[in-house]
Amino acid sequence: MEGMMNGKEYIESLRKLKPKVYFMGRKIDSVADDPITAPHVNAAAMTYELANDPRYEDVMTATSHLTGEKINRFTHIHQSTEDLVKKVRMMRLLGRKTGSCFQRCVGLDALCALYITTYDVDRKYGTDYHERFKDYLIHVQKNDLMAAGAMTDVKGDRSLRPHQQADPDVYVRVVERREDGIVVRGAKAHITGAVNSHEIIALPTRAMGEEDKDYAVAFAVPVDAEGVVMIFGRQTNDVRRLDGDIDCGNAKYATVGGEALIIFNDVFVPWERVFMCGEYDFASELVETFATYHRQNYGGCKVGVADVLIGASAAIAEYNGVERASHIVDKLTEMVHLAETCWCCSLACSYEGFKTPSGAYMPNLLLANVTKLNITRFPYEWSRLAQDIVGGLVATTPSELDYKNPETRDLIEKYLKGKADVPTEHRVRMIRLIENLSIGAELPESMHGAGSPAAQKIMIARRANIDVKKEEAKRVAGILPDEDYLRVRGFKREGDEGRS
Amino acid sequence: MEGMMNGKEYIESLRKLKPKVYFMGRKIDSVADDPITAPHVNAAAMTYELANDPRYEDVMTATSHLTGEKINRFTHIHQSTEDLVKKVRMMRLLGRKTGSCFQRCVGLDALCALYITTYDVDRKYGTDYHERFKDYLIHVQKNDLMAAGAMTDVKGDRSLRPHQQADPDVYVRVVERREDGIVVRGAKAHITGAVNSHEIIALPTRAMGEEDKDYAVAFAVPVDAEGVVMIFGRQTNDVRRLDGDIDCGNAKYATVGGEALIIFNDVFVPWERVFMCGEYDFASELVETFATYHRQNYGGCKVGVADVLIGASAAIAEYNGVERASHIVDKLTEMVHLAETCWCCSLACSYEGFKTPSGAYMPNLLLANVTKLNITRFPYEWSRLAQDIVGGLVATTPSELDYKNPETRDLIEKYLKGKADVPTEHRVRMIRLIENLSIGAELPESMHGAGSPAAQKIMIARRANIDVKKEEAKRVAGILPDEDYLRVRGFKREGDEGRS
Amino acid sequence: MEGMMNGKEYIESLRKLKPKVYFMGRKIDSVADDPITAPHVNAAAMTYELANDPRYEDVMTATSHLTGEKINRFTHIHQSTEDLVKKVRMMRLLGRKTGSCFQRCVGLDALCALYITTYDVDRKYGTDYHERFKDYLIHVQKNDLMAAGAMTDVKGDRSLRPHQQADPDVYVRVVERREDGIVVRGAKAHITGAVNSHEIIALPTRAMGEEDKDYAVAFAVPVDAEGVVMIFGRQTNDVRRLDGDIDCGNAKYATVGGEALIIFNDVFVPWERVFMCGEYDFASELVETFATYHRQNYGGCKVGVADVLIGASAAIAEYNGVERASHIVDKLTEMVHLAETCWCCSLACSYEGFKTPSGAYMPNLLLANVTKLNITRFPYEWSRLAQDIVGGLVATTPSELDYKNPETRDLIEKYLKGKADVPTEHRVRMIRLIENLSIGAELPESMHGAGSPAAQKIMIARRANIDVKKEEAKRVAGILPDEDYLRVRGFKREGDEGRS
Amino acid sequence: MEGMMNGKEYIESLRKLKPKVYFMGRKIDSVADDPITAPHVNAAAMTYELANDPRYEDVMTATSHLTGEKINRFTHIHQSTEDLVKKVRMMRLLGRKTGSCFQRCVGLDALCALYITTYDVDRKYGTDYHERFKDYLIHVQKNDLMAAGAMTDVKGDRSLRPHQQADPDVYVRVVERREDGIVVRGAKAHITGAVNSHEIIALPTRAMGEEDKDYAVAFAVPVDAEGVVMIFGRQTNDVRRLDGDIDCGNAKYATVGGEALIIFNDVFVPWERVFMCGEYDFASELVETFATYHRQNYGGCKVGVADVLIGASAAIAEYNGVERASHIVDKLTEMVHLAETCWCCSLACSYEGFKTPSGAYMPNLLLANVTKLNITRFPYEWSRLAQDIVGGLVATTPSELDYKNPETRDLIEKYLKGKADVPTEHRVRMIRLIENLSIGAELPESMHGAGSPAAQKIMIARRANIDVKKEEAKRVAGILPDEDYLRVRGFKREGDEGRS
Repeated sequence: MEGMMNGKEYIESLRKLKPKVYFMGRKIDSVADDPITAPHVNAAAMTYELANDPRYEDVMTATSHLTGEKINRFTHIHQSTEDLVKKVRMMRLLGRKTGSCFQRCVGLDALCALYITTYDVDRKYGTDYHERFKDYLIHVQKNDLMAAGAMTDVKGDRSLRPHQQADPDVYVRVVERREDGIVVRGAKAHITGAVNSHEIIALPTRAMGEEDKDYAVAFAVPVDAEGVVMIFGRQTNDVRRLDGDIDCGNAKYATVGGEALIIFNDVFVPWERVFMCGEYDFASELVETFATYHRQNYGGCKVGVADVLIGASAAIAEYNGVERASHIVDKLTEMVHLAETCWCCSLACSYEGFKTPSGAYMPNLLLANVTKLNITRFPYEWSRLAQDIVGGLVATTPSELDYKNPETRDLIEKYLKGKADVPTEHRVRMIRLIENLSIGAELPESMHGAGSPAAQKIMIARRANIDVKKEEAKRVAGILPDEDYLRVRGFKREGDEGRS
Repeated sequence: MEGMMNGKEYIESLRKLKPKVYFMGRKIDSVADDPITAPHVNAAAMTYELANDPRYEDVMTATSHLTGEKINRFTHIHQSTEDLVKKVRMMRLLGRKTGSCFQRCVGLDALCALYITTYDVDRKYGTDYHERFKDYLIHVQKNDLMAAGAMTDVKGDRSLRPHQQADPDVYVRVVERREDGIVVRGAKAHITGAVNSHEIIALPTRAMGEEDKDYAVAFAVPVDAEGVVMIFGRQTNDVRRLDGDIDCGNAKYATVGGEALIIFNDVFVPWERVFMCGEYDFASELVETFATYHRQNYGGCKVGVADVLIGASAAIAEYNGVERASHIVDKLTEMVHLAETCWCCSLACSYEGFKTPSGAYMPNLLLANVTKLNITRFPYEWSRLAQDIVGGLVATTPSELDYKNPETRDLIEKYLKGKADVPTEHRVRMIRLIENLSIGAELPESMHGAGSPAAQKIMIARRANIDVKKEEAKRVAGILPDEDYLRVRGFKREGDEGRS
Repeated sequence: MEGMMNGKEYIESLRKLKPKVYFMGRKIDSVADDPITAPHVNAAAMTYELANDPRYEDVMTATSHLTGEKINRFTHIHQSTEDLVKKVRMMRLLGRKTGSCFQRCVGLDALCALYITTYDVDRKYGTDYHERFKDYLIHVQKNDLMAAGAMTDVKGDRSLRPHQQADPDVYVRVVERREDGIVVRGAKAHITGAVNSHEIIALPTRAMGEEDKDYAVAFAVPVDAEGVVMIFGRQTNDVRRLDGDIDCGNAKYATVGGEALIIFNDVFVPWERVFMCGEYDFASELVETFATYHRQNYGGCKVGVADVLIGASAAIAEYNGVERASHIVDKLTEMVHLAETCWCCSLACSYEGFKTPSGAYMPNLLLANVTKLNITRFPYEWSRLAQDIVGGLVATTPSELDYKNPETRDLIEKYLKGKADVPTEHRVRMIRLIENLSIGAELPESMHGAGSPAAQKIMIARRANIDVKKEEAKRVAGILPDEDYLRVRGFKREGDEGRS
Repeated sequence: MEGMMNGKEYIESLRKLKPKVYFMGRKIDSVADDPITAPHVNAAAMTYELANDPRYEDVMTATSHLTGEKINRFTHIHQSTEDLVKKVRMMRLLGRKTGSCFQRCVGLDALCALYITTYDVDRKYGTDYHERFKDYLIHVQKNDLMAAGAMTDVKGDRSLRPHQQADPDVYVRVVERREDGIVVRGAKAHITGAVNSHEIIALPTRAMGEEDKDYAVAFAVPVDAEGVVMIFGRQTNDVRRLDGDIDCGNAKYATVGGEALIIFNDVFVPWERVFMCGEYDFASELVETFATYHRQNYGGCKVGVADVLIGASAAIAEYNGVERASHIVDKLTEMVHLAETCWCCSLACSYEGFKTPSGAYMPNLLLANVTKLNITRFPYEWSRLAQDIVGGLVATTPSELDYKNPETRDLIEKYLKGKADVPTEHRVRMIRLIENLSIGAELPESMHGAGSPAAQKIMIARRANIDVKKEEAKRVAGILPDEDYLRVRGFKREGDEGRS
């Protein structure tokens, strides 16, 4: 099949893949159907499903600049700042629809970053990575594939560079160069959506020097390539899914991205899927480009999730009978304010994007990092406010199995009732949703997804144009001359005004 | 047996009780031994065990003012501000020992509050609650009992007073007065340590008017009294305990208090265990007294837990090889600063305590509320910092079952290794401990335990002496005369100085 | 003269006006030349001067949609979202150039708000305010006039509505309706740039009911109209200007807007300058429209000023020899982050603007309020950080008169020297600039300019679409059906999956 | 005269001194009477006056441990933790009385620090500094002298140590050792209360190495010693005092400490006033001891000032008619909460003080630094809240000279009126008081007084006992054995429980 898939087709397509996925000591047979992974699949499925909904066509689809065909925006290389803005609108939409991470942006960002960097590498070295990559891109677009962007290496001792590590494999590296391709070894940590993707796109995770040459490698492989092993990480309250849907809060879509540890056990990659191999001086461009795209997103997707949390907080306040208390209104307003501030950041870095030599558009680097740095802070505060509003039951509500147990059901029904006209089950569901969204892995994901705050601060410091600001300060302070002022007042030099 | 128990004896004593406890659809046979409740039992056991350790005798024990015998401080009525200070030292000690809530303070605070309020009720109404209560207190002290303080009613529609509710039982009430005692009905929500206590002490949860008279009731019953049903609440990642100890982070002691919904299904209480019955005008004193004692604690116990979290954050930084990075040092220092600020609050409200008419000492009301209000904020920030330091693995580490699975064990061993000389398992355990302490029910407990922030704000506003401050402002602003100033400068009235 | 003025011409034009301005007990003869008001004039002059600079033509000028002529953007009605974006770019540019408030935006925002509301009033009432207003607008554009937007009434007792006040004049009102015009009485408080404007545009300050009809009045008069009295407010360290330029920090441009209390002592306004008169049901639209435009600005102008403060902080760190200390770098980065967050907000609300029925474009209402609410917080934090970086001298540096005093000059020269190669005077000037920007009226202006935080919160709550968010939450929680999910999974209804 | 002075006598005593004080290019003749310095004198005078008020005797006076006489507590060496607590109560009392810095604590803290360190130096080196110092102390106590503690050197290039500086005099140093004493040169910056003290006590400002030996010098001289020159620093709005009292806000007591730059132009110090001379290895102890005492204070004095600010905010809310608005109540409560948190810190570090070998008591070092670090943050927030409550007039109110000008008086009277029954002047005075307390040098003083935040963070990191915390974390995580747990559960080793 070719062309855009819908949600159902996406799920079907997963059933045809045979990735090696482990979780809690067992191998997962069908990622699409296993109760642990299914909710993640459902969230990703929305990236397919909504693209087929006429209401969302404008934000969810685009026209391929390579083939001219209508494609899912998650496979599109941004051709304008408008595309960048639509990307974050798509993020917020999906965050609201799923109350969850829908995982597919990482692959999109990897595609865009490779598009730009392969172009730049070729310009310097006369290589042909860019053409190679475009072929791959067309393949992805035509088949509407979901790719996992795999950047973060496991890193071992963080004070050492790749080639200095006791175990040389703690950064993914080329262990063999063959005529038909390369063999790679290593592991990528906490890769979002990996188990339910079709492809894995691996990128280097840091700036590199010449001695780290073998680590300067970027490539794509199918998730079920020989030698790829994935271990699905534990998440907060993950096994509640095995007991029913109420205790999950968000039973359909999980919450976080479903991160996996991907191990490359001497995996062979044919040359047509190798997009960087040894050009260590471009590792940092690739990392920075990817990071910029990825940091752009968080004021979209996380704000979409925040919309659900705000709605849930407002709903539970109503169920509790306190929706008009002034402190409740104030806290809800504060949640909105914080969320919309993040939204402003995602919008602004997108609108202020720029065209790269490759033709692809990138978000403003400074503002994209500002966006993400806010996301390492504000979600903690809006979650705190949600927990304040919902009340203590968020941490003490009995299990749904007790709710279903005839010996205790009536007691729960009677004593967990809030306002008289609200079914107890609705109240419990809403409490569980707030638990799901405000307690747990959602927050560390906000902290570390797309890089930790220290990484954003380095980029902000680097892009802040402090030197220009210093000049302005010196001019205003009267240390450097101010031509405009002198002209307006008709003075020859500073101080002539003779203030006395 | 009489006299102070040690930890083992406490556990033994629990095995003799038969409370009706439900969890996840099943009845728990032995709270002391069930893997779900055992970690909570272990934490509470430390309140017994350390009292027998000569190193901690000073903080963990006291001399009963009623019997002159050495008793566990958790059954002691504070006879001085020194006692109040020792109480918070005991809290911090146990927080550090267990990295958890050890549950026994609620009962202690209920005992202290009843000691004071029964005295005051008797003075007004000529009743004999205080003597009755002292008999009960001697019983608790002699048998070293753990009591659950049960205050929070389930409350139904929060905009209505008890007697206005659609279901009259959503606040605990007296449904029958008999010659030998009373019959009570209703439920108390999220009661810490309830399932592994010997006794339940129920108190009203709010100020009441005459029409709420039947709700103004305080009493004690054994946990296995006829008609008492408890449903143990779900906690973050609670069932990880069923799979092993690594994924728990804190396998031995759980983290939060193990809250239960306690239902009183027409429970009979003999008069000698009834400590308030209809004196609605004292409900608010009882609530406020209990709340003050309970809010005092949080800069002790939570800071003890924070000590563990700070230590864990420092340890993981070392395991990751980044312990000397300036931003890491700064974040650890900030965590310490926030924790010690809370500790200052608990100390200050204790040192500034006062003697009540009953002879018992109470913490300073304003400062106790300030203490707790900080706890609704700072733990969120220090948890955020811990999550920043630990890195993304806090939310994506594979299960220990994968670690034990021969197919994946070596991969995890190899790829989750940090610094070369630190065993992978140590690193994983430390990550899990940080997960356990910073993600999950710990934070909502900080928010709502001892009352939500709005409750503390009301108390702070009430105790802030704003009117006196207004007078000072008017004097300084020159609106009211300033005698000291006039005398010092030898002026007759304000403005005489003739500033020119 | 007609057409765009430059800075010098603007100053000249002020000399021709004779407004009645008082300050510190005296009447100011020439606002353009008095040392107290001249720095404010200089700042406003930059709005003229830079419009004639080819480098800034794009942001500083526009084409009138009425006359087709090139005009200063400060007199332009926004015809697109691009215009809105250029407006905030102009704000940031001028903030950086002046390190100050340049005052002219209030008039611009008043023009835009009247353009929209007069159109809407006419549509409902068949009045001709809009045509009248367009004539006035052409007059303003052609003569490149600066108008003071005067909205905030003095308000008396804030708990009472206009018609309920003890003194009916504490809101500006119509006291007489004549054939040729109206007579107004009342006062507007803290009106930025008033004394050095050509025109005053008065608008109502709040929503009104029928009884407040006489207060629903909008009009324009020249600053020196008969009956207009202005009292220029005191500012932080205002009289330092009388002693020299160093102690001012920013000697050329002051810092804040130069606010005046404008009193209308029975001022006559001819009908052609009356733009609302009694249509009380449009008062709130006018207020809200003006407020939205005005709140849009603050992430522009204040961020421009922050650029100067950041530059000054970086420069002083260098002068002190600590520019590489990690905590200094971190604080500077944080200042940048906070400033750029506000900038994102101004950009976003502009890019997300919309077309009104009148044809004029308005910023997104929700996001404009979010912008301003951040400005009531972040400048306090970036000022705090600047004060941290600069060191204690910011509050204790000797006067420049001591610096000029031969008895003390050498001592200051010697002992206030920082790094050996930096002149002492430069260091002192930079400290004074930081003092000027971080201590003083700059912060209250951030707080209250364009309305106090409580006003923004009301607007945010109103525009937050909480009901839609509640629906999303109910759907995700499984309370409302989720059609997309059902379709993707092929279920008939929620719960069919039989998660097991 | 001997014995405790009252306020009037203190002022009289100042008139007998002839310090060389410059301000704004002129020499101040009588510090006690000059309108610029008089308000500072008044604040300091309260430290004398209240000591003679029977109501305050307990906090304001003490019994000399050297002479057994009743002395002003500002000359007392703390003999118990109770003394330490009384010190901070004295601070808060005086903060409330004056709404200002009363300056005398710096000298007290210098006395206490020298008392301890001279003792320790003598123990190591067999010197007789301690006896010498005790003689001096008795002199201070008997004559009730006010001493300025002068620690902060001007420091030049902060990246260089004293002996590395281009100008060797940027740290105070011994330039000559004579038989009868030493000659010192250098300058101390922003010394609080210096111009209206009787004595200057100079201390080194940092840890030193052997090459900095000449800089390791501590001594006392009278303020009018030959060679001492003081330049009084400019403060926010300082010259408003010359125009009247309303615009000052706090006309009687100024606000900040009245800091001076003290220059030692080859000042001779007789040996009996030299308390350290070359013992560079004790410089850091002396600095740390002084800093601890001084940081202890800030939750006292600044909270006293905050009391006035809170009162002023409550009063102006009432004058404006909004005292019952929920957001106003919330902001006032937050101000109280922040202030009382700081108060808790000062109390806690005092109660937790300890006895030094010299017999003097010192506050807890960790908690004293925590106290001060909070003061570098919270006053900014409570000032922000005050500015929010008071409204825009805080930055735009006309001068009192306009109020007194017959041409404008009635207009101001009419239009600045708030609630009908509150005199306009009262409202204006209250606005000015809030301006005085929340805008200006008050905040940088909170930031840098007793050392900048970076200094406190270093001390907190050093005293945090992180290693012990790491051990606790390892025990809880199951990496180190937990004996208590094993004993309670009767296990031989960790993991034996066989959690199943």
